[in-house]
Amino acid sequence: MKRGCIIVAGGNGSRMESDLPKQFLLLDGLPVLMHTILNFHNFDAAMQLVVVLPTDQIQGWEALCQKYHFDIPHQLTTGGETRFLSVKNGLAMVSQCDLIAVHDGVRPLVSRETVIRCFETAELKGAAIPVLQANESVRQGTMDDSVPVDRSQYFMVQTPQVFKASHILESYNQPWIPEFTDDASVVEHAGVKVHLVTGNRENIKITFPEDLQIAELFLKLRFNLKI
Amino acid sequence: MKRGCIIVAGGNGSRMESDLPKQFLLLDGLPVLMHTILNFHNFDAAMQLVVVLPTDQIQGWEALCQKYHFDIPHQLTTGGETRFLSVKNGLAMVSQCDLIAVHDGVRPLVSRETVIRCFETAELKGAAIPVLQANESVRQGTMDDSVPVDRSQYFMVQTPQVFKASHILESYNQPWIPEFTDDASVVEHAGVKVHLVTGNRENIKITFPEDLQIAELFLKLRFNLKI
Repeated sequence: MKRGCIIVAGGNGSRMESDLPKQFLLLDGLPVLMHTILNFHNFDAAMQLVVVLPTDQIQGWEALCQKYHFDIPHQLTTGGETRFLSVKNGLAMVSQCDLIAVHDGVRPLVSRETVIRCFETAELKGAAIPVLQANESVRQGTMDDSVPVDRSQYFMVQTPQVFKASHILESYNQPWIPEFTDDASVVEHAGVKVHLVTGNRENIKITFPEDLQIAELFLKLRFNLKI
Repeated sequence: MKRGCIIVAGGNGSRMESDLPKQFLLLDGLPVLMHTILNFHNFDAAMQLVVVLPTDQIQGWEALCQKYHFDIPHQLTTGGETRFLSVKNGLAMVSQCDLIAVHDGVRPLVSRETVIRCFETAELKGAAIPVLQANESVRQGTMDDSVPVDRSQYFMVQTPQVFKASHILESYNQPWIPEFTDDASVVEHAGVKVHLVTGNRENIKITFPEDLQIAELFLKLRFNLKI
């Protein structure tokens, strides 16, 4: 079973109130993106890792890899105008994998259990994505006009989203449509059924400045509890 | 404009892995429920505050109030079998208020801005609740069968939920139905339109052990940033 993972790190620092792209910010002394890469490498050292970065961040990333002596093997490619095109660029680098994951570069705290659940279910069923159930009441509509809905039927979607290679490679040949909000929606539009598995709560997307501190806290809790 | 607030603190410690009810756990050295009460008292010292507690926690709460010299005026009443009945017991204690809020006792980090937005909008429009937009992809269905939905149309509901007194008092005369998941849904079922206002991200519900540490972090960030 040959696995591949495309790690998409397209963001800039604007919402982080930082000049550094958020994937380069330090989490417990190491750039966020290195944590993310390590999670997959530690699960399967033979996994092909492809990191997609904006063109103007490639040099900065290479400098960081030198500075932190980061020698986990990975390939680099540049991002496109949209996430869809970035993933497509990543897919072009993947060779002879049976299963391909797509993961957000700024989700450095995906658990080993979540990664295992996603790959195992994708192997059995073709496509698997991690989700968490909404833990507050949910409403649907607009700020001016909304209705309550049954929260037990709503799921917040995380990554990695994992697919049989043929499913995702074929799906990304479709022309882009606005309904493509994540990889699951692309693959689904091509007729593949997507299975949900349980994600992990710490698997947050680093978006706002405080997220980095929440992530540090989760990291500390993880080591306190599990080591 | 006379305001009232019913603070519902019905939980036990089961999901917190604690023998103490979660509303009694210490946040930055003070029980969670005291933080919650202070948020409303500091906004309007004339507000009538009614705290609803399970019968077997009343004595423990009174002991905590003594221990922490907590002298913010508030009335106590006991909770019912369900949240609906607990709020109903709280409403029976409220007298001559124009606006009545219902707030979760375990949301100690509601911001002053959120409280103001809720009361102001309820005063103008009859009913207001704080929400945040989903910040991840959202799917609807079951773990076995789900579809992607447009996340910009989904809102996670917080408290305080604030209503013109007549609206909530009349609404709570309805017989309970399973669709009553929060106070907004009760009032709405009686024909009142509920308006959404923006909540605040730190306004989390203390549910799991790590929530208390996330809350401490938010509290620190708040003081660093704003004081």
